[in-house]
Amino acid sequence: MNAFMPPTRLLMGPGPSNVAPEVLAAQARSTIGHLDPDFTQLMELIKEQLRLAFRTVNRITFPLSAPASLAMEMALVTLLEPGDKAVVAQNGVFGGRMADIARRAGAEVRLVSCEWGRPVDLDAVRAAIRESPEAKLLAFVHAETSTGAWSDAAALCEMAREAGMLSIVDTVTGLGGIPVLVGEWQADVVYSGTQKCLSAPPGLAPITFSERAVATAKTRKSPIQSWFLDLNLMLGYWDGEGGRSYHHTAPVNALYGLHESLTRLLGEGLETTWARHLAAHEWLAERLQELGFVFVVEKEFRLPQLNTVWLPEHMEDAPVRRRLLDEFGIEIGGGLGPLAGRIWRIGLMGETCRIENVNRLADAIATILPQRSRATTLRCNQIERTLNCG
Amino acid sequence: MNAFMPPTRLLMGPGPSNVAPEVLAAQARSTIGHLDPDFTQLMELIKEQLRLAFRTVNRITFPLSAPASLAMEMALVTLLEPGDKAVVAQNGVFGGRMADIARRAGAEVRLVSCEWGRPVDLDAVRAAIRESPEAKLLAFVHAETSTGAWSDAAALCEMAREAGMLSIVDTVTGLGGIPVLVGEWQADVVYSGTQKCLSAPPGLAPITFSERAVATAKTRKSPIQSWFLDLNLMLGYWDGEGGRSYHHTAPVNALYGLHESLTRLLGEGLETTWARHLAAHEWLAERLQELGFVFVVEKEFRLPQLNTVWLPEHMEDAPVRRRLLDEFGIEIGGGLGPLAGRIWRIGLMGETCRIENVNRLADAIATILPQRSRATTLRCNQIERTLNCG
Repeated sequence: MNAFMPPTRLLMGPGPSNVAPEVLAAQARSTIGHLDPDFTQLMELIKEQLRLAFRTVNRITFPLSAPASLAMEMALVTLLEPGDKAVVAQNGVFGGRMADIARRAGAEVRLVSCEWGRPVDLDAVRAAIRESPEAKLLAFVHAETSTGAWSDAAALCEMAREAGMLSIVDTVTGLGGIPVLVGEWQADVVYSGTQKCLSAPPGLAPITFSERAVATAKTRKSPIQSWFLDLNLMLGYWDGEGGRSYHHTAPVNALYGLHESLTRLLGEGLETTWARHLAAHEWLAERLQELGFVFVVEKEFRLPQLNTVWLPEHMEDAPVRRRLLDEFGIEIGGGLGPLAGRIWRIGLMGETCRIENVNRLADAIATILPQRSRATTLRCNQIERTLNCG
Repeated sequence: MNAFMPPTRLLMGPGPSNVAPEVLAAQARSTIGHLDPDFTQLMELIKEQLRLAFRTVNRITFPLSAPASLAMEMALVTLLEPGDKAVVAQNGVFGGRMADIARRAGAEVRLVSCEWGRPVDLDAVRAAIRESPEAKLLAFVHAETSTGAWSDAAALCEMAREAGMLSIVDTVTGLGGIPVLVGEWQADVVYSGTQKCLSAPPGLAPITFSERAVATAKTRKSPIQSWFLDLNLMLGYWDGEGGRSYHHTAPVNALYGLHESLTRLLGEGLETTWARHLAAHEWLAERLQELGFVFVVEKEFRLPQLNTVWLPEHMEDAPVRRRLLDEFGIEIGGGLGPLAGRIWRIGLMGETCRIENVNRLADAIATILPQRSRATTLRCNQIERTLNCG
């Protein structure tokens, strides 16, 4: 059988984003043992890099050896015990996934359904918290990958804290693209993924736990339902004092890649990276609006790294995206759930986030768009412009 | 921060094993989207390669996007519902982990404690099955990575089947090193890891489900406790008919590597690979016995790919292994659990499994061993030669 030679793609979907050659090269260095003293040093370096990236001093900060969906699961099953109550805000696919996981963990979920394409509604969450004074935590998505909406994590974490609740923040698409200020927010569990603005290959999920969160895990009445996600067991591996104890085998080469991608991120500087994302986003918005596209999310709540636009009327979703892929080598994303076939998701994440890439995409779309549509406002495929899909 | 440059190691521990340059190079190819049509083709290729490696025609055969510990968890939480009974054989660390996971899933576990360093005791399992006629499944470890013992998977699966029970086979260390005959065994869920005899970097876990197992998952009364491990959701991603649906983001580059490692395995041919493991093992046994070492496992039950020997008396464990690492660049493994400090685990897995590597290790050990010990039978640190650690 021949070797698999992937085509060259400009990855402008909702992730993975393009990976720098330096990160790919790091992944290809020779594998060493996961208990090797050199590897232990690398683990410590990565933990410290992640603290800097998350803007936290949380001791328990590490990359989970699995996709971000499992970090979501870890956050919830660590803090929730059967019978606990949780307030979960949903303004897209991923808030719904949080609620699903919380219910599977035996929790009673008070779902706050918000409009898709808008940030989490602060008033609605405030009301839900008031009506659920015994809830243990508030969980929400900071950067909704399914809609491109940016929620106010600082305000939501504060609300939770004032009500004596813990907070879980999903910022899979956020980290490295917009400010993620775990310390300032005083958030309790925050997780991300590697394949979005960190521009490392998919497969790992940085996660950080506050001292309150760790204490909650340590004083549970019932065991955590998952052996693999049991923080108390995993601490011996990632935070072993006086020597690490075996838990599972960490994905050694993937961690080489993550280390290199974090080195690049921190070398550029978080503020500079955030500014780069904002600038590229603004240029993309200008180019897309010039072509007649209408954004799903209101200007002030748009994630720079994940741009959603309504599909022009009469423009087919999948065939056009396929043309972008086949003729121009550019991947963009379609909608998820109730937004499938109705929106496009255009990522400007990490390495992908460059002005020349914005131009490449806009030029390609201009070539594909029917002439009559150009330079006029397209009538969009938006029977309801604001959606309540909850 | 400087790039991380791993040292060059000969990996002769219990995994990871050495990774071929071709596999490392494959991992470094450019990342593409996980929903890219080219990636979908790769997924199909890998599924077919895994079927060949597992010797099965099971339709539902795929690499889980996580370490093998999570495949263990997937096997158990898929088949077990709260209140179910399970017979779990334990003859080392990993059987114990299975029992732990089954209990966390709400199952009642009938643990069959067997001697560590010996295969699963067929009579004891037969008796346990007889006494637990209502048990839903039998779970056991085919190739115990903690002791090096090789259990009779064919006989155990048959016992389960005859009792109307499902079977779960952990062959993390088995696949690619010794015969894993899923079809012939009629096993129900079988899983492995990539970092042992497949010689791909750690991080993925090949798993296969019989039709009975899939039907059991589909007809559960209660939802699977884990969202990520819910086979019913994952099937849409790995087995989508008429198009794949988003579940999580697969670790794209790691899968490039797995594909390449499977291409190498199947290119060599399974029988040839098994024979290579056996030959290297026999040579290692000769060299080690010449140096006075005593094997933990009786000859007929030794895993060729995972050799365990008693530590010579007065030989310190960690310092000697550290010398092997620092002075000779060779990693071997220490014992786990009650065997920590008492045995060494020497892997001959996949790429590592070559006569020249056996010689390199034996020569290095000969250099380190105190002169007086050589060519005599070492008195070993074995207060009890057979252990019952259950």
